[in-house]
Amino acid sequence: MSEQRPTLAVIAAEAGVSQATVSKVVNGRSDVAPATRERIEGLLQAHNYLPPGRQGRARRSGLIDLIIGGLDSAWAVEILRGVEAECAQRSVGTVVSLVPPGEAASSSWTALPALHHSDGVILVTASVTRAQRAQVERTGAALVVIDPIDLPGGGVPSVGATNWAGGLAATEHLLELGHRRIAAIGGRKEMLCSQARIDGYRAALERAGIEVNRDLIRFGDFQHEGGFRCAQALLALPEPPTAVFAGSDQQAMGVYEAARQCGLSIPQDLSVVGFDDLPMCDWLSPPLTTVRQPLEEMGRVAARTLFQLLDGQPLVSPRMELSTELKVRLSTAPPRPWGNP
Amino acid sequence: MSEQRPTLAVIAAEAGVSQATVSKVVNGRSDVAPATRERIEGLLQAHNYLPPGRQGRARRSGLIDLIIGGLDSAWAVEILRGVEAECAQRSVGTVVSLVPPGEAASSSWTALPALHHSDGVILVTASVTRAQRAQVERTGAALVVIDPIDLPGGGVPSVGATNWAGGLAATEHLLELGHRRIAAIGGRKEMLCSQARIDGYRAALERAGIEVNRDLIRFGDFQHEGGFRCAQALLALPEPPTAVFAGSDQQAMGVYEAARQCGLSIPQDLSVVGFDDLPMCDWLSPPLTTVRQPLEEMGRVAARTLFQLLDGQPLVSPRMELSTELKVRLSTAPPRPWGNP
Repeated sequence: MSEQRPTLAVIAAEAGVSQATVSKVVNGRSDVAPATRERIEGLLQAHNYLPPGRQGRARRSGLIDLIIGGLDSAWAVEILRGVEAECAQRSVGTVVSLVPPGEAASSSWTALPALHHSDGVILVTASVTRAQRAQVERTGAALVVIDPIDLPGGGVPSVGATNWAGGLAATEHLLELGHRRIAAIGGRKEMLCSQARIDGYRAALERAGIEVNRDLIRFGDFQHEGGFRCAQALLALPEPPTAVFAGSDQQAMGVYEAARQCGLSIPQDLSVVGFDDLPMCDWLSPPLTTVRQPLEEMGRVAARTLFQLLDGQPLVSPRMELSTELKVRLSTAPPRPWGNP
Repeated sequence: MSEQRPTLAVIAAEAGVSQATVSKVVNGRSDVAPATRERIEGLLQAHNYLPPGRQGRARRSGLIDLIIGGLDSAWAVEILRGVEAECAQRSVGTVVSLVPPGEAASSSWTALPALHHSDGVILVTASVTRAQRAQVERTGAALVVIDPIDLPGGGVPSVGATNWAGGLAATEHLLELGHRRIAAIGGRKEMLCSQARIDGYRAALERAGIEVNRDLIRFGDFQHEGGFRCAQALLALPEPPTAVFAGSDQQAMGVYEAARQCGLSIPQDLSVVGFDDLPMCDWLSPPLTTVRQPLEEMGRVAARTLFQLLDGQPLVSPRMELSTELKVRLSTAPPRPWGNP
């Protein structure tokens, strides 16, 4: 920031304070009397040093906090890729904190922006309470949430994907291949993104005139183990499904293993569709047909939204949903004739 | 650092400079005359503000830079997990930068510690030249390298794993199962870690009195595609191997797909051993026998080493190698009788 020092000197002279005091305000330090701070902030805004509307939210450090809670790494690293790329373009550093699932819901993470003197927080998959939001706001940091478990309310901007449309596309793909007994595995029931995917699945069946069979809908978690256990139960049914729509790629990997243990080949005996499109989908055997969530782009949009908040620009909408897209690979095929009575 | 301000005032008085100038030295700013800086650094050390031996390397920001270059995410995120855990314990923030492979070798990343005012840099898998090291040193940041492609020289501390012992253990496991035609797939030949794994493989064969067959050793890259292509070539040999030791888990996934396309079952027709023990090994179908690299622990040790450097503590050794360990899962079994003439 050395090229901006003359401006700080001018502001110090106009405010009748030392340049060190102006620096403190710019750097978000707390040891400045409120009246002095207000006078200096007014001048900083007048000189286009602080954009109007930032209301005291100064770029203090050129850092943002990316707080990842309660999620497996493969998913989160794609988000990180997008956030980091967008931040690096602006020479902003991305401070990454991995918060265990239990703690993401607690207040422990709200202290991080103050600790790192960061300008803003991107929180990945955790619910945000009003109290937590207020704690972050008090540090002067902006907040954006990626794919929250429940809608944060109170106008916290959030970025997600079109989960319902993804569930619809996955199921329509299986219907087009000729499947009629199609199972679905969801994440935890209280997660909105999981509910939306299952609702898309139901909608596709209903549009095709197929009655929704509650035996064929299971809820695990989004991990491998959840997919494995639910698939084991589904494949043990008197009339097992010929296709499974899994709620995540990791669940789909669990379905692969349950099929292998039953001696079933994918896709000859069982078609499988995942959700996420992690890089590993291309490396699975067979490569996994899945619904792509644009995770990297979601990270980029979250970062851009954070910079808009910091620059005092209006947001088009507090909730942004990016498009999902079906990626057809080798794990889906028409059902065997005898599997489709 | 507010409780340390009285010390800064005392030092400023003793040095005959303003407190702002002392702050600049503490904060690693460059706009202080060299003679003045030297006088202030001496006083800071005398007052235990800078530990002796740190030679001007002050804790400026409570941040470290983790720079990840030229590697797939699944591997790197395990390192991140360890670095972040160790840093979070000390309330130090981890600024993560993902540098494309080509750029990790260039000088672009050396500017990051100055940009982020970070105290140190952990660099993941890239070679470090003397010029780059000097650039980092000039910013006052400490440097530790994880698993460098070549030994950095010049005393840069580095953390790796016992690659040779891992290659030995993987191959001995296959020999004990009764395999005699065992293939090995390495990463790029110029990578020391890959060379060490292949040498461990050779050593195990030689100890078992089996001649090393150069047709059975292939070099790809550590990615899925490298494993796939090399396995295709190996399985097309007039006498194909009954077992493959892959240089990474992602290569092993490529071997899985090549086997599937040849109609071979794992482990009945082909045994496969990987290297790394990424979380996904448990989710593969079948779960992958692999050589565990303690990646998270390597991240922790790298961070601890960085803090030792910053605290002016002596290092036991500039090169630390953590133990690898064979994890037997379901991808290895005795060869079929007719596969072992």
